[in-house]
Amino acid sequence: MSILIKNVSIVPLTENNKIIEKGYIIIENNMIKQIGEGSAPDDNYVEVIDGTNNIALPGFINTHTHAAMTLLRGYADDLPLMEWLETKIWPLEAKLTAEDIYWGTKLAIVEMIKSGTTTFTDMYFHMDKVAEAVKDSGIRAVLSRGMIGIGPESDTAIEQTRTLVKNWHNQANGRIKFALGPHAPYTCPPDYLKKITSLANELNVSINIHLAETKGEFEDIKKQYDKTPIALMEQIGLFNHHVIAAHCVHITEEDIDILKKYNVGVAHNPESNMKLASGIAPVSELLSKQIAVGLGTDGASSNNNLDMLEEMRSAALLHKVNTMNPTVIPAYQALEMATINGALVLGLDGEIGQLREGLKADIIMVEADKAHMIPRYDLIANLVYSAQGSDVNTVIIDGQVIMKDGNIVVFDEQEVLNKCKDVAERLMKEF
Amino acid sequence: MSILIKNVSIVPLTENNKIIEKGYIIIENNMIKQIGEGSAPDDNYVEVIDGTNNIALPGFINTHTHAAMTLLRGYADDLPLMEWLETKIWPLEAKLTAEDIYWGTKLAIVEMIKSGTTTFTDMYFHMDKVAEAVKDSGIRAVLSRGMIGIGPESDTAIEQTRTLVKNWHNQANGRIKFALGPHAPYTCPPDYLKKITSLANELNVSINIHLAETKGEFEDIKKQYDKTPIALMEQIGLFNHHVIAAHCVHITEEDIDILKKYNVGVAHNPESNMKLASGIAPVSELLSKQIAVGLGTDGASSNNNLDMLEEMRSAALLHKVNTMNPTVIPAYQALEMATINGALVLGLDGEIGQLREGLKADIIMVEADKAHMIPRYDLIANLVYSAQGSDVNTVIIDGQVIMKDGNIVVFDEQEVLNKCKDVAERLMKEF
Repeated sequence: MSILIKNVSIVPLTENNKIIEKGYIIIENNMIKQIGEGSAPDDNYVEVIDGTNNIALPGFINTHTHAAMTLLRGYADDLPLMEWLETKIWPLEAKLTAEDIYWGTKLAIVEMIKSGTTTFTDMYFHMDKVAEAVKDSGIRAVLSRGMIGIGPESDTAIEQTRTLVKNWHNQANGRIKFALGPHAPYTCPPDYLKKITSLANELNVSINIHLAETKGEFEDIKKQYDKTPIALMEQIGLFNHHVIAAHCVHITEEDIDILKKYNVGVAHNPESNMKLASGIAPVSELLSKQIAVGLGTDGASSNNNLDMLEEMRSAALLHKVNTMNPTVIPAYQALEMATINGALVLGLDGEIGQLREGLKADIIMVEADKAHMIPRYDLIANLVYSAQGSDVNTVIIDGQVIMKDGNIVVFDEQEVLNKCKDVAERLMKEF
Repeated sequence: MSILIKNVSIVPLTENNKIIEKGYIIIENNMIKQIGEGSAPDDNYVEVIDGTNNIALPGFINTHTHAAMTLLRGYADDLPLMEWLETKIWPLEAKLTAEDIYWGTKLAIVEMIKSGTTTFTDMYFHMDKVAEAVKDSGIRAVLSRGMIGIGPESDTAIEQTRTLVKNWHNQANGRIKFALGPHAPYTCPPDYLKKITSLANELNVSINIHLAETKGEFEDIKKQYDKTPIALMEQIGLFNHHVIAAHCVHITEEDIDILKKYNVGVAHNPESNMKLASGIAPVSELLSKQIAVGLGTDGASSNNNLDMLEEMRSAALLHKVNTMNPTVIPAYQALEMATINGALVLGLDGEIGQLREGLKADIIMVEADKAHMIPRYDLIANLVYSAQGSDVNTVIIDGQVIMKDGNIVVFDEQEVLNKCKDVAERLMKEF
């Protein structure tokens, strides 16, 4: 039951800058069985994929999004943050049904698969529906139910999370992981975050939280607790568990030391931070201290797409101009952020994020024989600075061919598009 | 001899935010004859293009590039500016033959057409070959031979420019315009720039120049002439002519007033400025003073692609975070920068940059029925924040269908790709 990819250039993301100009990959069940240069050994492969003019690399890992927010894409843009949330996003979100969330998540999954993402990290609601969409589509995900620690909803969130973890953690052949999803320090008071910390300990799952996204948050938390958001989390004990910290835009030197000390994974969302004018995270500094920084798109309402190739490029360009140093975040490092670093951030290194024997077969192929990818002096620079999402033509997740020649082969893509158009139409009528 | 585009959404860029949800465009010869809502009048159209699920808009106008630098794409990245130029770019450029420039330009044209650019602005050398590539490919361009005002080359540049203007200005059915291309204030002393100014006057053509790109340039010029680069140009009299000023990153309040006073067109290159860490131009301030600011990709060696959709998005995102104001450069304004503003910058408004009767038929169609373009609450936000170059499926320039269903139909694209691969291989052997 093995699949062969032959005649392919391979960027395994294993050792620094290692590239196999022409080689092969053998997949058995859901694992990478063998990678080599030149021609593959003869065998009875159930499927042979010709990778001529293609680059194979680990699928992209989106470390922060709210998938079903695709349903809000383009609904409200270019507004001040609070006006945007209060008058546009939250009222529309309140109209979303469980069924809507299923289809909205599926739309996100279509978009992510088509641009090479094989794992995403989600925080939203109706997460049983999100888990179903992940199960049905073949993608890999770390899911968390967004938890607000204020009001009656706070206990419900904990109970529902318990059930979700019980029902879904490690399901779908291990493609689904669950995490706890306390929303942010300004929506979850310290006592609540302590409860979450105990729960994470009890259930042995990661914690996914927004941290230090805006200047307002930084100042408010500082005022209320006389500590930065990051220092407050340390005090609470949150970092004694594995934490995926989204944003970390407004952080101090001491905060960086804390992130390093506790091995906190940082999900950097350059385009969302730019679009919402949240600020610029000190990413080159984080990276220079060997802190794991992955990339995320954030939700489609603040991006407005889920394209990790674009996110890589934006990260590489933004931090160059921000530090006035063109050598910052070179192409290979941007690619690491989108792959192996993402795996580290999610605590899934040793499972995904690289192409090597014994890892899960999450593999994408990018077409290199296009005008914007020629000449081919440097595959990595071409991938990071020149490629676009649609250059991804093949996606394999957990050993299953999900997309071939740009077409999703495991579910009906057009049905997803049509369902989501219907949902959007209904939302506009209701609103 | 008319072409009909039917059932298409139209973003004409004529009045603020005007959109025709479903309408038609009639093209006669090289002109837009009629645009309307609903169904088109019956007629004997030579070609009918069904625009269902497509958005028609004016082709993008790239106000600054060095097209044949596609041949250097990915050759050298992530280096300090002077090391990059001196050890990598210039030595390789010295190896380029006239024939190479033809094919490198054609590669750029393929890439530009495929991502919806219908007009580009070029400054390079062997410009007769560039003009030939423009003529052969059907694209529209404003071309200038890069002129260095130091050494024996300075007079040659003027003589060659005279010949080029005589042979090529307004050729190819008016698709080719020539301009004078003094490289920059730090490579063209004041006396030389005065000569250029007289020549522009005599030949009645525009001037295309790099201005205030880096902090180093700003400081050097200030030291040498006790004036900013912009103020120095005013003193020289350069701005008495129509000037396309590329970059304008390092400019003062007084400089902005000068740009406004003389109606100087600014070519803003966000991704190049980010990648080379040149700095961030004060674009929202320029726009708020009604200065014409268009977008450019710069050469492929500092971008590394020529995708104007990406450039629009980068401009919109960069200036939001730079000013910490999410309302800055809203989607529609970014789209204006890539179209009608580009026409203004090049002095070609009233000819291109909008879809309206009596203008040249430079029209692109973008496919809207893709996962990342759904829902369709806001076509403009989807175009600017979500679309990718490959969503462009149809390109019409000067009334001629150049690309249909994503395929270039007027010349052999694969030949261009192959020729450029050969050139790159030869360059690597020589170097």
